[in-house]
Amino acid sequence: MSTPSLTGANAPLVGPVVGMIGAGQLARMTQQAAIALGIELRVLAASADESAARVIVDTRLGDYRSAADLREFAKGCDAVTFDHEHVPTEHIEALAADGFAVHPGADALVHAQDKALMRERLTAIGAPCPAWARVADEADVAAFGEEHGWPVVLKAVRGGYDGRGVWVCDAVEQAAPVLASGVALIAESFVPFERELAVLVARSPHGQGVSYPVVETVQRDGICVEVLAPAPGLDPEVAAGAQSIALRIARELGVTGLLAVEMFQTARGLLVNELAMRPHNSGHWTIEGARTSQFEQHLRAVLDLPLGSPAPTAPVVVMANLLGGDDPDLFSRYEHVMAHDPGIKVHFYGKEVRPGRKIGHVTALGDDLETVRERARHAAVYLTEGIYT
Amino acid sequence: MSTPSLTGANAPLVGPVVGMIGAGQLARMTQQAAIALGIELRVLAASADESAARVIVDTRLGDYRSAADLREFAKGCDAVTFDHEHVPTEHIEALAADGFAVHPGADALVHAQDKALMRERLTAIGAPCPAWARVADEADVAAFGEEHGWPVVLKAVRGGYDGRGVWVCDAVEQAAPVLASGVALIAESFVPFERELAVLVARSPHGQGVSYPVVETVQRDGICVEVLAPAPGLDPEVAAGAQSIALRIARELGVTGLLAVEMFQTARGLLVNELAMRPHNSGHWTIEGARTSQFEQHLRAVLDLPLGSPAPTAPVVVMANLLGGDDPDLFSRYEHVMAHDPGIKVHFYGKEVRPGRKIGHVTALGDDLETVRERARHAAVYLTEGIYT
Repeated sequence: MSTPSLTGANAPLVGPVVGMIGAGQLARMTQQAAIALGIELRVLAASADESAARVIVDTRLGDYRSAADLREFAKGCDAVTFDHEHVPTEHIEALAADGFAVHPGADALVHAQDKALMRERLTAIGAPCPAWARVADEADVAAFGEEHGWPVVLKAVRGGYDGRGVWVCDAVEQAAPVLASGVALIAESFVPFERELAVLVARSPHGQGVSYPVVETVQRDGICVEVLAPAPGLDPEVAAGAQSIALRIARELGVTGLLAVEMFQTARGLLVNELAMRPHNSGHWTIEGARTSQFEQHLRAVLDLPLGSPAPTAPVVVMANLLGGDDPDLFSRYEHVMAHDPGIKVHFYGKEVRPGRKIGHVTALGDDLETVRERARHAAVYLTEGIYT
Repeated sequence: MSTPSLTGANAPLVGPVVGMIGAGQLARMTQQAAIALGIELRVLAASADESAARVIVDTRLGDYRSAADLREFAKGCDAVTFDHEHVPTEHIEALAADGFAVHPGADALVHAQDKALMRERLTAIGAPCPAWARVADEADVAAFGEEHGWPVVLKAVRGGYDGRGVWVCDAVEQAAPVLASGVALIAESFVPFERELAVLVARSPHGQGVSYPVVETVQRDGICVEVLAPAPGLDPEVAAGAQSIALRIARELGVTGLLAVEMFQTARGLLVNELAMRPHNSGHWTIEGARTSQFEQHLRAVLDLPLGSPAPTAPVVVMANLLGGDDPDLFSRYEHVMAHDPGIKVHFYGKEVRPGRKIGHVTALGDDLETVRERARHAAVYLTEGIYT
């Protein structure tokens, strides 16, 4: 026995090479789609223990903040794309200048990296947004609160996710320590929303676009815990409007690959909350629940292949996230969950279990929302907490 | 940048380890299911260029005919299973004697390796078989033809697949060169079948069994080219009877993991043709077409986890194999196939393209058999031959 070398005597069918920067669960699940299509997925990981690194042969270790590592990584890739938004914009521009096909490009991706630029651009193209402004000091925040009312939501312009980098302030005094931290901020008016929706669309370099059905996302403590597909009881005209907004944003911003648009549904209509340009938690339900998973769709889009059907495979699909608890012994709970519900689909990401961390998800499919939702909830609670409820 | 080492500082969630001997497309597609379940799939490959070796980090190079390589491979595995039937029976027995959990065990698997033992055992348990006999010389074959009529089908007791190791003889003279080759043979009466069916069942070590819907398999030159799920127009009682036969064989033979039972449908009922104890070509449709794919099901069975729902996800599912032609440039054909049919699912195995070799498959799903079948056929012909028909 020996360890394998990657140069063999045969001539295997070598497909297009897609390089994904980052090796979290999004890259890991992309590998499942890449295997089917014969696409060679390469990832840039910080450690061989990362979620995707453990299932991808062509894992390169390096630093996504290093221009040299990125250039070395991109060599030989037919397309370069992302598992996260943290690659410095100037490095992405440099890769494109070197002739690499980077999707999404820096001009688009910057709107998922920088909330101020995102708000400016969305406002310019007429996409519905909460009232917002750049704020630098207490006077700015006070003026914003004066005009738009309290509470005021402060958001870090860069780096926030899953509720981090967001502060809801009832008065200017609460904004003071956030302002004092020196982080670049925008203020947004607090939106009294009815629920949160998300629209996932894909756009390819030559301009084809598709939209998945609009879903409802349920958050707890700023973290998505559940996705209901399609969004229950959503007026078809509102749904079509949401898809139209998302496709328009993708086109106007020149997005290539996936774009997830998180929205608030309010009494006065839809408002765009956040953008992500990669496979997104709100689209994990598509693995079993849509004819083309978001991961396959992203690969097709970044390679400029024709996009796949986003048609749902069941009337109701519910995805529930598995958030880490104190006990890492999750596999012992497979027996009950699988015996209890032979149709439940379990996804573990192979990540270290830490409290509150997304370590997997479950998906249930069926005809009746309450039944399907209960199945997903039961499996998620049991897998993470070992409690039968 | 550096190449990854598999010992890191973090403590990732490490799942059960399943070792699969062989690294063809069955192991490759099993990896997609393993990724979802957080199961660590290890394969024993002859070369790093093999289909599964290219997508599985824990690939070990070795020889499945070497007892030492097999023992080394099995160390640390929670279950050991197979991508093919070619591992010597005595080596499998030795692994079990060493305390490794091997599924299926040698006592079961030998019936998928040795056609004479298979026929003896099936006859003993009353499973319907064609007339058959062991034959050693021309007199045996002549006597068999005398009793059961011509043509007589000679089959190699070991090693045949995809039509190899099968000879249809109209007279004893045609049998002479086969007999002269020294290969151990059985004779079977030629079955004038209406069509070929296949039943895929799973059985776990503690005895749970499930059956997928009965499918029709369409062969050309002894190679499966198309699978129709469920078998069109099959009488529900006949279907239930076929499932019952397959589940009984699994139980009586002590199969653990998957069992594919290939059958002839004849005017006088069903006859068992062949057995396979692993994921099977007749079950590739389950990746998108059943709630639990055969690959996930096999992993669950060999780990003695509760089995998953075999329920179909669409009224009609058609799988068409991609058989290699002269031109290896298959990826250039993705554009047409994906644009023509956004719902078609393409699977490439990353194997060297050789004429007649199974290099991938496509799956179409829908409501109407003729439409779905035509979609699969069109995609398969275009992908392999570049011809628009």
